[in-house]
Formats: sequence, C-alpha cells, structure tokens
Amino acid sequence: MQAVLDYLKQNQKRALAEFCEYLRFPSISAQSQHDDDLTACAQWLAAHCKHIGLDAKIHSTAGHPIVTATTPRVKSKTKRPHYMVYGHYDVQPPEPFNLWTSPPFEPRIVGRNIFARGSTDNKGQNFAHLKAVEAYLKTGTPLPCDLTFVIEGEEEVGSASLSTFLKKHRRALDCEAVVISDTGMPSPKHPALGYSLRGIIAFEITLHGPARDLHSGGFGGAVDNPAMALSQLLAQLRDKNGRITIPGFYDGVVPLSAYERKQYARLPGTDAELQKMIGVKKLFGERGFSSSEQRSARPTFEINGLTSGYQGEGSKTIIPSWARAKITCRLVPNQKPEHVRNAVLAHLKKICPPTVRLEIEAGHGAEAYLVSPTGKAAQSSLRALKQAFGHEPILMREGGSIPIVNQFKKILGADSLLLGLGLPDDNAHSPNEKFSLDCFEKGQLMSAHLWQELAKD
Amino acid sequence: MQAVLDYLKQNQKRALAEFCEYLRFPSISAQSQHDDDLTACAQWLAAHCKHIGLDAKIHSTAGHPIVTATTPRVKSKTKRPHYMVYGHYDVQPPEPFNLWTSPPFEPRIVGRNIFARGSTDNKGQNFAHLKAVEAYLKTGTPLPCDLTFVIEGEEEVGSASLSTFLKKHRRALDCEAVVISDTGMPSPKHPALGYSLRGIIAFEITLHGPARDLHSGGFGGAVDNPAMALSQLLAQLRDKNGRITIPGFYDGVVPLSAYERKQYARLPGTDAELQKMIGVKKLFGERGFSSSEQRSARPTFEINGLTSGYQGEGSKTIIPSWARAKITCRLVPNQKPEHVRNAVLAHLKKICPPTVRLEIEAGHGAEAYLVSPTGKAAQSSLRALKQAFGHEPILMREGGSIPIVNQFKKILGADSLLLGLGLPDDNAHSPNEKFSLDCFEKGQLMSAHLWQELAKD
Repeated sequence: MQAVLDYLKQNQKRALAEFCEYLRFPSISAQSQHDDDLTACAQWLAAHCKHIGLDAKIHSTAGHPIVTATTPRVKSKTKRPHYMVYGHYDVQPPEPFNLWTSPPFEPRIVGRNIFARGSTDNKGQNFAHLKAVEAYLKTGTPLPCDLTFVIEGEEEVGSASLSTFLKKHRRALDCEAVVISDTGMPSPKHPALGYSLRGIIAFEITLHGPARDLHSGGFGGAVDNPAMALSQLLAQLRDKNGRITIPGFYDGVVPLSAYERKQYARLPGTDAELQKMIGVKKLFGERGFSSSEQRSARPTFEINGLTSGYQGEGSKTIIPSWARAKITCRLVPNQKPEHVRNAVLAHLKKICPPTVRLEIEAGHGAEAYLVSPTGKAAQSSLRALKQAFGHEPILMREGGSIPIVNQFKKILGADSLLLGLGLPDDNAHSPNEKFSLDCFEKGQLMSAHLWQELAKD
Repeated sequence: MQAVLDYLKQNQKRALAEFCEYLRFPSISAQSQHDDDLTACAQWLAAHCKHIGLDAKIHSTAGHPIVTATTPRVKSKTKRPHYMVYGHYDVQPPEPFNLWTSPPFEPRIVGRNIFARGSTDNKGQNFAHLKAVEAYLKTGTPLPCDLTFVIEGEEEVGSASLSTFLKKHRRALDCEAVVISDTGMPSPKHPALGYSLRGIIAFEITLHGPARDLHSGGFGGAVDNPAMALSQLLAQLRDKNGRITIPGFYDGVVPLSAYERKQYARLPGTDAELQKMIGVKKLFGERGFSSSEQRSARPTFEINGLTSGYQGEGSKTIIPSWARAKITCRLVPNQKPEHVRNAVLAHLKKICPPTVRLEIEAGHGAEAYLVSPTGKAAQSSLRALKQAFGHEPILMREGGSIPIVNQFKKILGADSLLLGLGLPDDNAHSPNEKFSLDCFEKGQLMSAHLWQELAKD
C-alpha cells in the first residue's frame, strides 16, 4: 500500500498534465454542434484507461457513448467483491463566455486551483479515482476488489441512455455499491460522505384569462388579471413560517433523527457566512430547521420563472391574456414524486379561481435517495476520507438531485457512496468553474484507501 | 353643406388609400429604435395636411415632433370661434408579433374593417377629422369656425413634450373647446359622447433576492424566492371582493350620482356579451358595481407584466435573483395621482418582507377628467353624432386615460369633447388592432356636421 501512496505522490505532475488534456475537450452534451467533441473525448478517455492498465470499451448509445473500464480480473476461489465507479465526461454549456476570466476549455492553474469547464463537474473528481487505480496497477499492488468504471456522456442532459445500458449489462455490473464523486464537501477540513439526495418534480402552470391582451383602460376593473390571479394562487402555497400549505405535500417525509441533526450541527459555516456568500438581505426558510437542514433535508416549492404580459422597455397598459410560472419542487426521502405532483396539481385545481383557466404541463420527476449512514460501506468510506484528508469526516445530506442514483438502486440493487470532492466555491454550472488541486490529490489518496477499507468489511 | 357631404361620399376610396399610407409608419413611441419612423410619420402627416389645404408645421420637441395644421384664417369683423382638434400619430408596441394574423404595419382590409397597429388608436379616428376639413376646403364651403389640429407623437408614452408646447403656444391655441376622437362607442347604433376619463399612474417594482441566480438544489429551502415574495406582495393588494386593499387608495373618489347610474343603465350590451367578446371564463370586478361602472367609474390596480428567472424551453432549476412587475393604476375623478402613488409605494414598502430589497421605478401619472355633460358644446356634439350615425347618442364615462385633457383645461382653460369612434372589439393596444370603415366614414360626416352644430350655439 505504501508503494501506491508513493506512486501517487511522485506522479502528480504527470497526472495534472493528463487532467489538462482531458479538460481541453469541449464535451458539451447539450449542444449538438459538439457531438464530435464528445466522441473524441470518449475515445481519449478509453485510450487513457487502456494506457493505465484497464480493459476499456466504448459503448455506442442512442445519444453519446458510454466508456467502461475494468480492472484485470483476478482468479479467486471465493467471489471477489466488485464495485462500480460512476462518473461523466460531459460538461455544462460554458455560456455566458464574457464572464469567464480565461477560456473555459484552456485549463489555467492559479495557485492551488485549476480553472476550466468540467474541472470539478465531473472530470476532475472522477479522474482522481482513475489515478488511484493506476497507482495500484503500475506498482503491481494487488487490489482487494474488482472495479468497473462507468463514465457516461449524458449526465448534464438527463442520462437518457444510461438505464438502457444498465439493464443490458446488469450481470456484468452486479456490484456491492456504486462509488460516485460528483458532489461536494463543505471545506477541505470537512471531508464528507453524502448519504442522501433530494428528488425533484418539475411542472409549469399557465393561467389563461382573456382571449388576448386587453386595453387596461377600456376593460380594467371588470375582468380578472391573470398575473394577479397567478400571484394570488402562488402566494397561498407557502405560509409565513416557510411551510408549504398544499395538503399531502409532506406525506411520507421521514423526520430527521437525533443522530442526523447532530451530524448537521457539526457542519461548518454560519448563517451569516451563507447570507454573505449568496448576497441576500436575510435568509428565509421553514421554521424549526437550521439552514443546512432546510437546504437538504426539507422539501421545497420553488418558482424558477415568471412570465406574463409586457416585459419590454417602459409601460404597456394591458391586462395580460395569460400568466405562467415554471416550478420545481425538491423532494426528500420517502416522498413519492407522483404523489406530490398529484397533491400539488389537485390543490392548484381546487384553489384556482373561476375567472381563469388553469393549464398544467408536467415535466420530469425523480425520487429522493437515502441510504443508512451507519452501514459498513459508509463506515469504510468515512475511514478512507479521514486517512486522505487528515480530518474527521462529516456525514451530510445533499440538497441537489442525481436521478441516476435511483436507477443504480432499482436496476442493479446497489447503494451509492457519495464521496464528493467539490468545494462550495467551485462554480459548478457557472462561469469560472474550478477544482482544487488539494482535493484532486487527496481524492486520489481517498480512492486508494477506499478499496482497502471496503475490503475490511 | 351638401357639397361637403357629397365630396366625402365620392372620395372614400382615395381617403382609404391615404389612410393606409399613414398606417404603414411603425411610429412606436415607446421603442427608441423607431425614432426615425416617428419623424418620417410626422413629415408625411404635415405634407398631407398641406396637400389638403391646411397650413401645416412640424414642431421639434425634446421627444417626438408635434404636427400642427390650421385652416386658412378668414377675415372677420367679429371674433370667429376657434376649436382645436387633438390627435396622436404614435402607436402602441405591436408585440407579441406571433399573435397578429397579418403584419401590424401592412394594413389589411377584411370586409368593413381595416387591420393595422394604430388603425383605431389613433390614426384612423383623427384622420376622419382631417378628411372632413378637406371636404370643406376642396369644395370651397365656408367653415363657420377656425380650426387648429394638434397631432402629437408621444401620447402612448405620457405626452411629456405637450404641456411645454401648449404653454409656448397658449395664445395661438386659445379655443372654445378641444375636440378629441380617441375613445370609443358601445356599438355603431350607440354613438357616444364621453364626459369623463380615468387617470393613471404607472410604476415598476423589482424585488432583489440573491446576488445571482442560485442552484435550487444547493440553496433551495434556506433563501426566499423573489418570485414567491413578489407573488405574496401583489396578492395582498386585492381582496376577494375585487377591492384594492391599499390604505388611502380610494381617497377622494366621488360617488356616482343617481343621474350617472341611470345613464350607465342605458348602455347596450350584457355581461354575457362582454364575457364572450373578451373570451374569459367569468367576469370579475369590484362588488357593488356593474361591469360598465367597474370599467370606467372605479379605480384599478393592474399588473401589466411579470418577469422573473428562466422563461425559455424546459426547466432550469434556479432560485431567480430578482422578480419584477409592471403596474398601472387607473384613477377616477378627484383621486390625486401623487397621493395614490405615495399611498401605493408606502404600503409596498411597509409589507415588503425583509428577505428581499424593494426597488421602485416611478412612471408617468395623470389625473382623471370629468366635465358636465349638459353644456352647450356637449349638446351640439350630441346633435352631430345623431346626424352622422342616425341613432340617438348616449352619454358615457370612458375607462381609458387621455392625460393631456387635463393639460388642455389647466393651460388653455378649454374643456374637451370626447367623440370616440372606436368599437369595443377594435383591439386597441392588442394584436390585430382594427378600425371599422363605417366608423371611419361616419366619423367624417360627424366632423363635418360638428362645426355647423357648434356654430349654432
């Protein structure tokens, strides 16, 4: 094992150069003009996996290719444990370009950070695992388990091809657990194991009033204004304590255990720091929960966009014909997306005034994810984190959603270990995305330790 | 006089062709990229006025030019009566373009209607008066009075330059009354004289939340959503009886007299017809008033537009950084615009939650207008309407606002005669604006008769 750690230490410069090669591909899955860049990126990735000693393959899909890479299978009388490492080589669109201080696909190192689109999400985090396996293979150190990397190219656009792929390769992908580094930790002194993700439902509601925009002088006063009707409809859905008032909305929500709340209390950062970071006058959330709990353990009803009437320069004296709200709700463990969606829509129908017609367009949905943080794999992960980062790791729920985690559970029966290496200021999905080189190096150590610790179970 | 009427009858085809030329100018005063189109429109209008025998001038202003055109002054021992005819050549923005069945600045005649932006508001209504004067001048029929047309280019954006102009030309514009055709009649069988207009205040409110759009997974739950805060702010401003809840909002409102309510009762059209015409599921207005009263004798609080967050295709999981509402309030006689504006803004500041920052941008404002419907000029107008339309005219309050009417009263000391030629289905300020060719023709006859009837006083 010391050979592995020494190898990693001695090869950081080369690892960084290879990471830069990987980052130079503009593998933007949402933009079809970059289709060839995704293919080229997948080919580079597969070649690199082969180069470090893995058995790599490129799998065509209806969308972008999936790269798999397996460790050389070791003959054994007993069944060897098998873990899957999931990641994605596709990235978010870099727009708006003018807010980047250097080109998004020309990696730039400043101090202990590397700036590039995809650096933290997800190329860097996933590449750390590849570098750890390379150290085992190049030093001839026996791995205590078999590994399969599954690195897809459609994560940023909904992973449409992945479940078909998982079903097709279910036997080969049968595993103890899926290891994913695609989330975050609060600070380098607080390595973290995520044990929950929020789910989501998306929908759009439109209130239709008059058949066309009306002159507010000629008609104003005798006809309901759809923008006012929408405001009144939405306003009723959250009370002054920040609680969603839709009957059935909280059905099934598992209360936070005393153990979990204790973990939350260990999270670093104050409300004042959070407030400053996001630039709001005052925080606001559901009464009875800390802001960390509100951000990850409580469901939300969020208006993502409002559209009605005239939005241009100056004023236009109309009663708008319609008003629209785009909405997403974050869900927490044991809330059923379909149940919540039905509860929301039934309530909207019930309270919609008779003066307007309610149109609902349902979008995507995904369940939340929760795995016991006290299981053996979780405990092994915590030990690996501590060894790599030198600090006591924390257990945390993630506020975001990684819908494919539910596919791993449903199709492969495998839980996911969320070993996020991103920092809060990494600007994932934003201009000037970066990845900490400390997290990159310590992530490699964590991965090297992880396979040993998992083997101890 | 018969020669005038004959001339009008014989020249309708040419008049319509000239009207189409006038409509082709995209004279959108609210959009600065159309500044040159307003100038070109004013030049065309002045040239046309000269062509029909008027003495026309273009007056530069701080904004868009004002066109004046006077009848050749007749030498007389006694002071000849002088009337001003007011109109505007600027138009509302045509957006949304996709709802127009033909391009807004390519006039299209279907049956007895002409479709184009500005057709009813106000190019067509005002042009009818020009055609009537042309008939007098071209047939050599003596006019019993002197006339001055004042046609401005900023009516749709608050007539900012007009009062300076009126003050500067106060002596030349000294007149018995101002004739304005910029309102409506209930139906071609119900020609109408308006004796009141609503006032208006315009403003825009923006609620600022986080410094940038936030990921709704990472932050949702711990920060107020500006779109929800805006909905809750707006929702409080109108109660279930349709009454505005802002303290002081109704201060000074003069109750409708029994005589006025009797006039309202004479108005044609049922609520069912109104509902069908505007295409709403159900009408809604302030309890205790008929829909006609609500539309013209009661103040309103109207949201003209809502903007927040993501409005494109699909969903984007953000907490928007800000949310905005464009608002106009219609005011009725004796409400003071500044008082109402202060009341509204003070109330908004008071109820704005501490989680967002309220920004207010004040727009234009204007008082309501009310004049006695029993004076001599009003009676002359009613006779002219009856001669032109062949039906008993009605007296009515107008729901719209013509703010400059108050300037005419204050600066020139002149009352306004509101001889509206628009029909309720003319779609003023909406897509597919049109003007009835019958109203265009009968409007010309009305104008021709009007000068004779006014001379009888």
